[in-house]
Parts: sequence; C-alpha cells; structure tokens
Amino acid sequence: MSEPAKLEAMRHSLSHILAAAVKDLYSGTTTIRFGIGPAVENGFYYDIDFGDLKISEEDLPKIEKKMRGIIARNLPIVRSEKPRADALKWAEQAGQTYKTELISELPEDETISFYTIGDFTDLCRGPHVASTGEVGPFKLMRVSGAYWKGDEHREQMSRIFGVAFETEGELKKYLNMLEEAKKRDHRKLGRELDLFCFSDLVGAGLPMFTPRGTVLREKLSDYSLSLRGAKGFHKVWTPHITKMDLYKKSGHYDKFGEELFIVNSQVNGETFAMKPMNCPHHAQIFASRPRTYREIPIRYMEATTDYRDEKTGELGGLSRVRSLTQDDSHVFCRNSQIREEVKRLVGIVKDLYNTVGMSNLRARLSYRNEEEKYLGDKKLWAFAQKEIKQAAIDNNLEYFEAEGEAAFYGPKIDFMAEDAIGREHQLATIQLDFVQPERFELEYVNEAGKKERPVMIHHATLGSIERFLSVFIEHTGGWFPFWCAPEQIRILTINENTADYVAKITSLLDNLALNKPVVHNEIRYTLDNRNESLGKKIREAVDMKIPCILIVGPKDVEAGEVSVRLRNDEQKIKLSDLASFIENLK
Amino acid sequence: MSEPAKLEAMRHSLSHILAAAVKDLYSGTTTIRFGIGPAVENGFYYDIDFGDLKISEEDLPKIEKKMRGIIARNLPIVRSEKPRADALKWAEQAGQTYKTELISELPEDETISFYTIGDFTDLCRGPHVASTGEVGPFKLMRVSGAYWKGDEHREQMSRIFGVAFETEGELKKYLNMLEEAKKRDHRKLGRELDLFCFSDLVGAGLPMFTPRGTVLREKLSDYSLSLRGAKGFHKVWTPHITKMDLYKKSGHYDKFGEELFIVNSQVNGETFAMKPMNCPHHAQIFASRPRTYREIPIRYMEATTDYRDEKTGELGGLSRVRSLTQDDSHVFCRNSQIREEVKRLVGIVKDLYNTVGMSNLRARLSYRNEEEKYLGDKKLWAFAQKEIKQAAIDNNLEYFEAEGEAAFYGPKIDFMAEDAIGREHQLATIQLDFVQPERFELEYVNEAGKKERPVMIHHATLGSIERFLSVFIEHTGGWFPFWCAPEQIRILTINENTADYVAKITSLLDNLALNKPVVHNEIRYTLDNRNESLGKKIREAVDMKIPCILIVGPKDVEAGEVSVRLRNDEQKIKLSDLASFIENLK
Repeated sequence: MSEPAKLEAMRHSLSHILAAAVKDLYSGTTTIRFGIGPAVENGFYYDIDFGDLKISEEDLPKIEKKMRGIIARNLPIVRSEKPRADALKWAEQAGQTYKTELISELPEDETISFYTIGDFTDLCRGPHVASTGEVGPFKLMRVSGAYWKGDEHREQMSRIFGVAFETEGELKKYLNMLEEAKKRDHRKLGRELDLFCFSDLVGAGLPMFTPRGTVLREKLSDYSLSLRGAKGFHKVWTPHITKMDLYKKSGHYDKFGEELFIVNSQVNGETFAMKPMNCPHHAQIFASRPRTYREIPIRYMEATTDYRDEKTGELGGLSRVRSLTQDDSHVFCRNSQIREEVKRLVGIVKDLYNTVGMSNLRARLSYRNEEEKYLGDKKLWAFAQKEIKQAAIDNNLEYFEAEGEAAFYGPKIDFMAEDAIGREHQLATIQLDFVQPERFELEYVNEAGKKERPVMIHHATLGSIERFLSVFIEHTGGWFPFWCAPEQIRILTINENTADYVAKITSLLDNLALNKPVVHNEIRYTLDNRNESLGKKIREAVDMKIPCILIVGPKDVEAGEVSVRLRNDEQKIKLSDLASFIENLK
Repeated sequence: MSEPAKLEAMRHSLSHILAAAVKDLYSGTTTIRFGIGPAVENGFYYDIDFGDLKISEEDLPKIEKKMRGIIARNLPIVRSEKPRADALKWAEQAGQTYKTELISELPEDETISFYTIGDFTDLCRGPHVASTGEVGPFKLMRVSGAYWKGDEHREQMSRIFGVAFETEGELKKYLNMLEEAKKRDHRKLGRELDLFCFSDLVGAGLPMFTPRGTVLREKLSDYSLSLRGAKGFHKVWTPHITKMDLYKKSGHYDKFGEELFIVNSQVNGETFAMKPMNCPHHAQIFASRPRTYREIPIRYMEATTDYRDEKTGELGGLSRVRSLTQDDSHVFCRNSQIREEVKRLVGIVKDLYNTVGMSNLRARLSYRNEEEKYLGDKKLWAFAQKEIKQAAIDNNLEYFEAEGEAAFYGPKIDFMAEDAIGREHQLATIQLDFVQPERFELEYVNEAGKKERPVMIHHATLGSIERFLSVFIEHTGGWFPFWCAPEQIRILTINENTADYVAKITSLLDNLALNKPVVHNEIRYTLDNRNESLGKKIREAVDMKIPCILIVGPKDVEAGEVSVRLRNDEQKIKLSDLASFIENLK
C-alpha cells in the first residue's frame, strides 16, 4: 500500500472505530443511525443521527476514550460480502435507515461489502487497515450539524470530526498549526488592529475598511500595480455595472447569468448587471479604436471591485466576500507573443510573492483533454500549452501539469503559495483565452494590412485583495512589513522636555522619501506625547503591532540619540543615522 | 428699469418679435399655434406648433431677416387688457389652443394682459421694451424639439432659440465663447486625445477610461486626496452596494428611494441598493467602535464611485453620467470645531482650484429660512451659519449669502469656479449635517465621560471626477498641465545615430523624481524613433497635445543638447540642465 493510501485507510478505519464507540456508548437509550464516515483531508468524520439525544463537544472525551479502548484491544477489521437483497435485510433489521437508502441506490446485481470490528458491522467499500491497533495517533476536534446528503431539506445529523496522522510528531505539528492559525485569525486581528469592520445595516460579505486597513490594502494593491506598470501595463478604469448585452455577447450570460447581481433602474426601467469580472469591459476599451500590430501587445490593468452573489452562509471575514477587488490585467497579444507575455507575468508573480514572504510557490499548468467543452482551435491549444510550459521552465518555476483542468476558453497557470504556518493558498492566476476575442470580434491590422485576431491573457497577481488580505494578515500575524504597515512608526516621549528634539525627528520623517518596493514617500508616523507612563505607551504600541517604535527621553536628547524598538530588536541610533536606518527597514 | 430687468425685457420682446415674424411668414399655409416664449439666460426662445410644416435650422435666416424688418420699423409694443372671458374668446377665435389652455388655468376673476406689435397680439404678463427698435443685437441659434409643458405625453413643438445682449460687443464675445467652447468640446477632445470611450454593450452614461484618461483622472484624484491627506484626512474604503436598511435608517430612503438603482440577488433573494452617496457608509465606520474626544475630529476621505439613475436623454459625455466618482470626505467634529474644520476645507478648495488655473472662485453661503423643512436645533443653525461665514472671511473668500438655500440637514458653502472661457461651474461643496449623526446615533465620550453627538461635515473638492474632467478638458482645451498630462514628454529622433544619446536622456528621465503638486516620480515619456519625417512626428505629437517634446538630432548629440518644444516655446537645453528644466515645468 502506498503511503498516501495507507494514511487514508488509517483515517477511514478511525471513522469506523468512532462509529463502534458511539454505538457502544449510546445505543442502549435510542437507535443510533449512521450516515457516512469517510476519510478526509487531515482526518475523518462520521455523520450520525442520534435521534432525540443531544451530543456536544463535551461528549468528545468520553467517545475518544472509548475509541482508544477499541484501539488498545487491537481488534481485527474483517471484510465480508452479502448479496444486495441480504444487505438490505441487514440494514432494515438494524434500523439503519440511511444505510437502507444507500444500498437501495446501488445496482440490483451488486455484491456489497461490509467491515466488522468486534460486534460492530458497517456497510463499506473499504479499504481499511488490518486491525484497530494500526490506526496511528488521532484527536476528536468538534461536533457540527450536517444535512443528510448535504440537502437542507433532509434530516440534520451530527458530524463528529477528528484529525489523524501517521505519527505523533505530525499530529502535534498539525495541532500546533491550528493553534497558531486561531491566534492569527484575520477576523480577530482585523478587530484588534482596527483594519476593517462590518455593519448589519450594510450587509454580510460587504466589509468596510478603516483608515488603517485602507493603507494596507492600498499599499499592497499599489505594489501589485507598480510591478505590472514597470512591465508595460497601463491602468484603465471601468464602471461597476453594464447592460446585460455585454455578457450576452461575451458568452458569460449563458454560463453565469443566474449568478449575477441584477440592477434595476426605477427611473428608466432598464436592466443592468454588476460586473463579476472585468475582461469584457477591457475588451471594449481595446475595441474602442482601430489597432495595429505596432501597438500590440496592449496591456491593461485595473484594481477594481467586482460583485459576486455568494451564499450568505458561506461569508466569513475577508475570505469570502461579495465585494471583491481584483488586481486584474488583460494582455491582448499575437500568438507568437504568448510565451514572452506569460514569462513576464510569471516574473511579476514571483517578485510579489517573494516580497510578501511567500516565496514557496507551486504552479499548476492546466491543459485541455479530449472533452468537447473545450473551445478554440486544437493546434492553437497545443502550441499555447507548450509555450506556457516553456515560460514556467524559463522562470525556474516549480510546476506540475494537470490535463482536463483548463478553463473551456484556454490553458492556464494557477499558483499555490505557502504561508508562514505551512498552509497552501491558491492565489495568482494566468489564463489564456481564445474565445472572448472571437466573440467580441477583436482584431488588429498586421504588417501586410490584413486583420488578425489577438489572444487575450487574463491575470491577477494578488487575486482578490480582500481574500489576499485574509491570507496575508494570518501569514504575518498582523506584524506587517514596514513598507505596508498602516502605522509605520510611533514616537513615544518620556517627558515634556523633549518637544524641540521631537520636532527635529518629525521634520526628518516628513522629509524622508522611500521608494521600495512601492513609492511611500510619506512616512506614516504618530506621536504619543500623552502624560502616561512609558510602560503603558509601549504596551499600546506593541498591541497595535507598530513595526518601529521610537522612544525619546531626556538622556536621548543629551546624547543626540533615539531608542529604537523593533519587533525583535532594541537599540540606540544616532539621530544622524536615523534616516538611513529607516530606509533599510524591511 | 434696472440693467438686468432691462436686458430681460429686451430678450422677452425679441421672443414676441420672433412670434410675429413666424406668423407673418407661415400663417398663410396653416394655423401656427404659439406656446410660451420667455426670456432665458443669454437670450430667449419660443415654443411653436407649426402643424404639418417642418421647420429646420435652414429656415432661421429667413425668420431672422423678417425679425430685423420688424425691428427696423420700430413698431410700438402696446399693452392692453381683457377680462378672462373675453381673453378666452379671443384665443378660441384665433385657433390658439395652447393660449386657451393657459388662460383657462388662470383664476376666474383675473384681468389678462396682452401685448401687440403691429397686427400681432399675444397673451403676456410683460414687461416689454416700448418699441421694437429698442431690443438690441441678437442671433437665432437653433431649432429643437420641446414637449408642451415639458410633458412627454403632450404635443411636440418646435423651440426656436436665440441669443441676445445689450451691445454688439457682448453678443460677439458670447458667440466667440460658444465657438471656442465647441472647439474645446470635451466629447470631441476625449476621442481625439484618446481619453475615454463608450460602448453600446455597456450602456449610456457609463464611460470607460483608456490608459491616457486614467492617468488624468488618477492624478487629479490623487492631488485632491493628497491635499486633504496633508490636513489630517484618512482614506477609507466602502463597497458600492448596501442593504436598503442603511438608507431607511439614514432617512435617504424616504427622500430618494425611488431614484435608487435596486440590486437583486438571484441566489439569496436579497435586495440591495447601489450607493448614490457615501456618508451613511462612512458613518458606519465611525460607529464601528467607541470614540472619545481625543480622536475627534475624525476625518475620512474616499475617491469612490457612486451610481445615480439619470434619465437616458440627459446623459452626454462626462457632464452627466450614471457612474460618478466622488472625491468625498466626511468630518465628524464637535460644534466648537466647526469653524476650524470649515476653514481647513475652504483652504483645500482654494489650493486645488488655484493649481488647476481656476482661481476665480465665488462661494454661496446657503442658510436656512423659517420654512419647516429645516431639521435640527435652531440655535445650532444660527451658530453654525455664523461660523461658516467667519471661515469664509478668514480665508478671504469672495462670497454671497443666500437664505433658504441650505440643505434641510444644515447650512452649506457651494463654490462656483470660472473656466478659461468665462463660464462658471458649480463644483466643490462643504455641507454641515446635524441630522445624520442623530439618525445613526453617533457619539463620542467627552472629557467628563459623558456622551456627546458630533456634527458631520460633507465635502467634495473636485465633486464628481467625471464632471470635473468635462470642465477641466474644456478649460485647458486638452493642453493639460505637465504634472497631470497623460503623456508628459515625447522624444523625437531625427535619425538612428542618436541611440546612445537617447539612452542617456531616457535614463535621466527614469531617475527623475517630481513631487509637486502630487508625487509623480515616474515621468511618463515615450520615444518616437520611427523612420518617419521629423515634420510628421512633430505634427502627431502636437495633435496629441504633448506638453513637452524633446527633439534629438546629430547636432544635438555633438553639442550635448536637446531641442525642447513646449506649447508656446522652443529652445535648446544642455543635457546637464534638462532635469532641473523639467522639474520647473508647470
């Protein structure tokens, strides 16, 4: 058995052991009916109908203890088979109505397998480990509600979820990561560091950004735009609504028409849609005047807010929002320019993720397969897939290839970035599009005076700024790099006799020009000269995770120094060295 | 008679002379029925129902000639009166159905006045000049369609419009201004300079900005934001939609509910509105945490796009759009801080309009009167009106006072700015608001630990960026100041032997940092080294109104110079002086 398969079997067996333990503990009082119990990422769960019994997280230790008993006895996990009719009889006799439903959905002539642990038998395809002693370390984590078959009109069951790994070390590492993730929860930090807020009057999934959060999102967005600006991209601006005609022409209406936010004019009776993406608008700017090969590639970019009608239940913090601001770009180029343009974009992605400390990037190259859904010329697909692969190689990108994962309109590269606590997030994307240029009849005149059709390349570097922020806040734990920190410097005074000296420092800060990685000439500093103890002032500054604290006391004035306190460092700096010290902060 | 009253009487008499001329010319063939013919700004018009006759601008010279004949004869304009019943009879006999309608709407016992010129008599309140020779110079301008009483369900009439002034000089000046305005039409320049575009697929009133137009709008917006940033304003970010609850609470729903764009979720069945203003969103950010007097004044700003459901027929270029981006700000302050805050805002307005060359500003201070519509404490109104007046005086503002012109929620200052061809535009605004803080129950804790309610001050400097651009493009005629010009510099080569020298120039430009009036470190230059004649290259650059053209030929290389061509100037500059030369461009 391969390693991943073995781990999956261990997790799967744990879900059976969980069910056996639950049956042991609770079947005296009521009929416990079991749903399904699969292995999943990081662990396993079982959906169980406890009837009138209420089960909560307080019950988990008891269940876990019972499970450990079953494991200690190292019971064999034994496979058996029954014809479908016998299997149905078994389920009916046991009162296992969910199993009855599952079995009755199988083909008439199917032979059905069961697995037995001690006196607990369960319908199951397997595979499992040979005996309960082989399952490895685990921990039950939580109980949550789950609808049978995920259908909100069916019975609500209790899902008991556990984590499980092959070794104690891996389990511990994972639990530590969860603990760390909880501390870094961006919703919690968002409140504590005053970055964004929600209002019931405005609605779920519609965050508002406070002054601090706005600095953060703008610096990140500006940086993303500036990287592309340096590579020949030009900003454009498009409105947030459009007549439906645009999406009928682009083809989006047929695919996503039912997911659009519909905008109704009460004055004129017209109907619009809120844009969920920007490509058709950008295509209209391309089409607004005749183009020649001399202008090609034309590269547009925009940081603009799109609206997507997510289900209310799926909204949480900034991870999933209805108002998502994309740092979107579109290249219109010739087929022969695909590789060079993709290389350019891969370079931008590497630069940005390197700067934000997420340089561990993996790329999925998504190709077509033989399915009919893929539109556009097959030869062009083959050529383009070769070109994006070469672009990945030329950029020394760690990549893997996935057939059948392309969008219907062209091949693509998706980037997975690893954060500081080891979680992987899919963020940047580069997507070729052979279809929209066709539907909008985009064209340019070539050297011979003939019309040609450009290829379109969609690209987002941060992706949605809101979602990126949800990752970035947790990645940094709120200790933002100097260049994008909302409040970069806080000056703390020890007493009032330092006013003249503080004026010298603020004048120095006012005149400091910093240009890397994005122009941020105006140092964002504050002065805390309240009549409070230094201890309190420092505590408040550290709570707000200010990257650089300057402390000024009478002795500093005499010595012509300031005490600088960084996150992990403290030192005295001569006033004459302060500017270059700040210029070198990361 | 006062001067303005005299001019109005002249214009009004001209509309009667127009009607007399039309009757003379056309009543042989059909019954010409007259609507109303008032004096208006810059001239006069008459709405006339020509029956089956089609009238066009080609007919204007003939009508104008007939009018000049009537004027030359210096006929007396004679007032007479009739009881209402006789007046009705007169209108019915004459077949003047519109006049019948007008008379029948007057009170039963009204005595009705008429004015007669030769054999043409017209229902009219007057006053008029004494005889047709007194009317002064005029010119018929155009014929357009107009619904009777402005009601699209009533008869469509022909509106003949003419301009008229007291002196030939004034008329000529006005006609020149119109001619100049036509040349500067921002819709025409928008196309020629490739600044913005529209698409039928996206819809009317929804402009898209090309790369050039986007530079322009962003530099202006950035400048407006930077002026406020320097005065303690902080950027925030809010979404473009909101639950209707926000406007129900703010009170906007009752007043403007029927003008909102309604957004419907197809997924969740929820209803939202597109925001037509940003104050309620900003109030929610203020309300997102407890506030103390130490933080007050809190000053938010945002350049964000609002959506207003304008009638399709009223949309044109950027003057009136559905997607309007406001450089909006909101101050939350104590009553005692009103004067200081208003002074601060007036200073910002003066700075900005000075920079864009529209320093000729007039301010209207709008106060309440005794009408009941005004909400909020009368004493606070009186105090606040005194404060904004003092702020205007302290800033040496040219102002006038207007009772009864305030918004229902507080007094305000509106700014009228004069453009390069003498037209006045209402742009910036400062508005006090006593009502929203009340409705949203905004509060802060004062020195005594008690809760107090802040005043809100609304302010926009540019107003809507789109509308400001429509003014600014015409004000500058497309010759934008160096700092906000989309393409600031174009380098033209004379032949290919200058490549190394051009590289020196581009390297110099790449490293030039300009910070006034807004940070624009990256010089926006292009290089035209095509194998085309210098004449053609210069022509194209001038057509695009590039403020600074650098011409590089072999002789320049030898002399270490460049030829600099500005709009109204041409000179040789040493390469060593080029940086400081560019730094001083306005």
